[in-house]
Amino acid sequence: MNILEIIANKRDGLKLSKEEINYFIENYTNGKVTDYQAAALVMAIYINGMDYEETTNLTLAMANSGEVLDLSDLGLVVDKHSTGGIGDKITLILMPVIASIGIPAAKMSGRGLGFTGGTIDKLESIPGYDTGINIEKFRENVKKIGISLMGQTLDLAPADKKLYALRDTISCVDNIPLIASSIMSKKIAAGAEKIVLEVTVGSGAFMKTIEDARKLSETMISIGKLADKETICVLTNMNEPIGYSVGNSLEVKEAIEALNGNMQDDVKDIILELGSNMMKLAGKGDNDEDNKKIIMEKINSGEALNKFKELVQNQGGDVSYIDYPDKFEKAKYIMPVIAEKNAYVKGMDNEEIGYISCSLGAGRMRKEDTINNRVGITINKKIGDKVEKGEIIGYIHADDELKGALAIKKLLNCYTWSDEFVEKERTVIEIIK
Amino acid sequence: MNILEIIANKRDGLKLSKEEINYFIENYTNGKVTDYQAAALVMAIYINGMDYEETTNLTLAMANSGEVLDLSDLGLVVDKHSTGGIGDKITLILMPVIASIGIPAAKMSGRGLGFTGGTIDKLESIPGYDTGINIEKFRENVKKIGISLMGQTLDLAPADKKLYALRDTISCVDNIPLIASSIMSKKIAAGAEKIVLEVTVGSGAFMKTIEDARKLSETMISIGKLADKETICVLTNMNEPIGYSVGNSLEVKEAIEALNGNMQDDVKDIILELGSNMMKLAGKGDNDEDNKKIIMEKINSGEALNKFKELVQNQGGDVSYIDYPDKFEKAKYIMPVIAEKNAYVKGMDNEEIGYISCSLGAGRMRKEDTINNRVGITINKKIGDKVEKGEIIGYIHADDELKGALAIKKLLNCYTWSDEFVEKERTVIEIIK
Repeated sequence: MNILEIIANKRDGLKLSKEEINYFIENYTNGKVTDYQAAALVMAIYINGMDYEETTNLTLAMANSGEVLDLSDLGLVVDKHSTGGIGDKITLILMPVIASIGIPAAKMSGRGLGFTGGTIDKLESIPGYDTGINIEKFRENVKKIGISLMGQTLDLAPADKKLYALRDTISCVDNIPLIASSIMSKKIAAGAEKIVLEVTVGSGAFMKTIEDARKLSETMISIGKLADKETICVLTNMNEPIGYSVGNSLEVKEAIEALNGNMQDDVKDIILELGSNMMKLAGKGDNDEDNKKIIMEKINSGEALNKFKELVQNQGGDVSYIDYPDKFEKAKYIMPVIAEKNAYVKGMDNEEIGYISCSLGAGRMRKEDTINNRVGITINKKIGDKVEKGEIIGYIHADDELKGALAIKKLLNCYTWSDEFVEKERTVIEIIK
Repeated sequence: MNILEIIANKRDGLKLSKEEINYFIENYTNGKVTDYQAAALVMAIYINGMDYEETTNLTLAMANSGEVLDLSDLGLVVDKHSTGGIGDKITLILMPVIASIGIPAAKMSGRGLGFTGGTIDKLESIPGYDTGINIEKFRENVKKIGISLMGQTLDLAPADKKLYALRDTISCVDNIPLIASSIMSKKIAAGAEKIVLEVTVGSGAFMKTIEDARKLSETMISIGKLADKETICVLTNMNEPIGYSVGNSLEVKEAIEALNGNMQDDVKDIILELGSNMMKLAGKGDNDEDNKKIIMEKINSGEALNKFKELVQNQGGDVSYIDYPDKFEKAKYIMPVIAEKNAYVKGMDNEEIGYISCSLGAGRMRKEDTINNRVGITINKKIGDKVEKGEIIGYIHADDELKGALAIKKLLNCYTWSDEFVEKERTVIEIIK
């Protein structure tokens, strides 16, 4: 076996064997297969495709390219992952809920890049919160209080990291088998036994159409089956931000409100759907209605909020910020965005909203950029809402007045309007298992 | 414009514009486009194809990536190129013929690599012959005596060189638009105004089928049209070696014999067909029959041989070797290959014959290998010939007895036999213009 044969086989549209895929990943990780050989193979995969078996073999080869965490001593770890969205504070709310139900909440999250934010950046806006704890402390936390949220400090699935960076430079990012194997390899390496995936669809997601989101879901579910990691996918609407805030401390504050029982409808829908499916996978309840009732009880009783406070305290964070969210430092300028006419909101360019937040300093365009926790966007009006001329539809939170003014203009441009009534969009589109 | 867009366009099967192709080649040559980006684009080209216009634009971009020779002061330079064969001594015979007719014979040739030999290596088996003269000397020679054959010492079409080396490492060699643009870019950079291409077909050629050879020919002719370099393709049979010898000094000796009027039928057919077409392109005669008569006269009168001797002398070679070919040093062992049964020769594995010659030391498997001029193979029996048990069908010329013995076995394995009468194969298959 050699890399030239493997490249030629995929070039000619043949199916790659498990041995061929292992050979490629092993030798790409150790540098014997060069970046240009990997680039040629990835392009051939992009154009000619991979079936579920090949995609699973790629996933497992990448997962096994570095350390694979064994968290089985913590109980049955059900991981949750989102394919990315705007204003996505779901993990901050959902994981404390899950922990309060008694399911071990051992989760590693990433940082934001491009138009989507990262849970780790959001957590770091809580003064003192340490996302960089080591794996022993992580295990210890989960054993002690049932929850730990940390950054991906370990070198998990290094082949995926290398391949992802390469794909980014050769226009091979948006390919379903490659996306699916990238996501699943990281989840498997991070010790997940079962996985609930929120697959986002729409203008603020990588999957722009329901068809693509379905294909991605089916691919990941098949990988889960073949790799013995049961997987459920929840398709959610990403044509508008989740909740009302975009930006790091702004989203933490919204999460605290939610844990206090004040949830936006879309946030609630997602929490209930993901939570119920996680309970099912964890063997904590088969009935959706019952599961959702339990979740609401955990929130309304304050148990979930207490779990969140335990989490923060346990990782060195200042809990007084959770008790008094007004303590979070505010941006210098909080500038209203004002409607220019009477109309219904018809649509929003959600990806652009992510970029606006990024341009204010809330996100990174390059890995080495630093983040401003204070800035971002809050939105009062989403799709289907009626707006009157002169009404405030949102606020820009900026530290720089000029950037803020520009963001106001840009945010107005994100909206499309209708004189006619517009139906609100469904948040949860469908469940695929 | 940026390379990611260009890669994405070809990935999606779109046609690349002239500007996109120029951008790619310019920035690949100067290193701003990386090898892995080029690899991804080349794979996308391999799988999704390029039309004639794209292929021509690639050809011209590669030709213009370095110096482009202007030989117009030498007259109308008609170049000749072969896509490679076993025992191919045609240039050594044809160019002196052409020069003796009054067409400037200004030709740069390559070295051998893999199973095919190179004209430059063959010329260097003439003691003293300098293939590494500079371009001024080259021009001077052509002006003075009408002929010069030299190596490719100039950095012509550097983008092609870089791309070819890359293609070799990513299983993207055997692709018609890429082969066509590689050949044509070198010819155009080397100053050809018109081109006769010998496109070889069969077991000893890169094109294994007539269909592929036709496609390659049509592609190169289209490039020639679009680039204003009139091109004619002559498809020739490469299911058996050209003439009777394979190996450097062995082939020079056969070429000298041919210039003395003793030509094998296949050699004669190729010389006449390529020569006549070169005469047409040079405006030296429109009628095939007349042209061929003139060529035979130039050979039979000794004018062509004299031109060859002038060439050798002018480039420092020892002409006594041309007058007395027995002076060429012989291999230590000249070992007969003996037929094992009565039969007709049905076929020969011609590529393998190239490799056998290579294994004796006549060729290179890697660029840095040195060449042994003495060794090689001579063959008495080709397709359609009747052979009797015990008859000598050829000789292995080896400097190492063990290698020679192995070569005998291997050469016998190259032959396939038939009890029935087998028709001889046509040498010239068709002319495409």
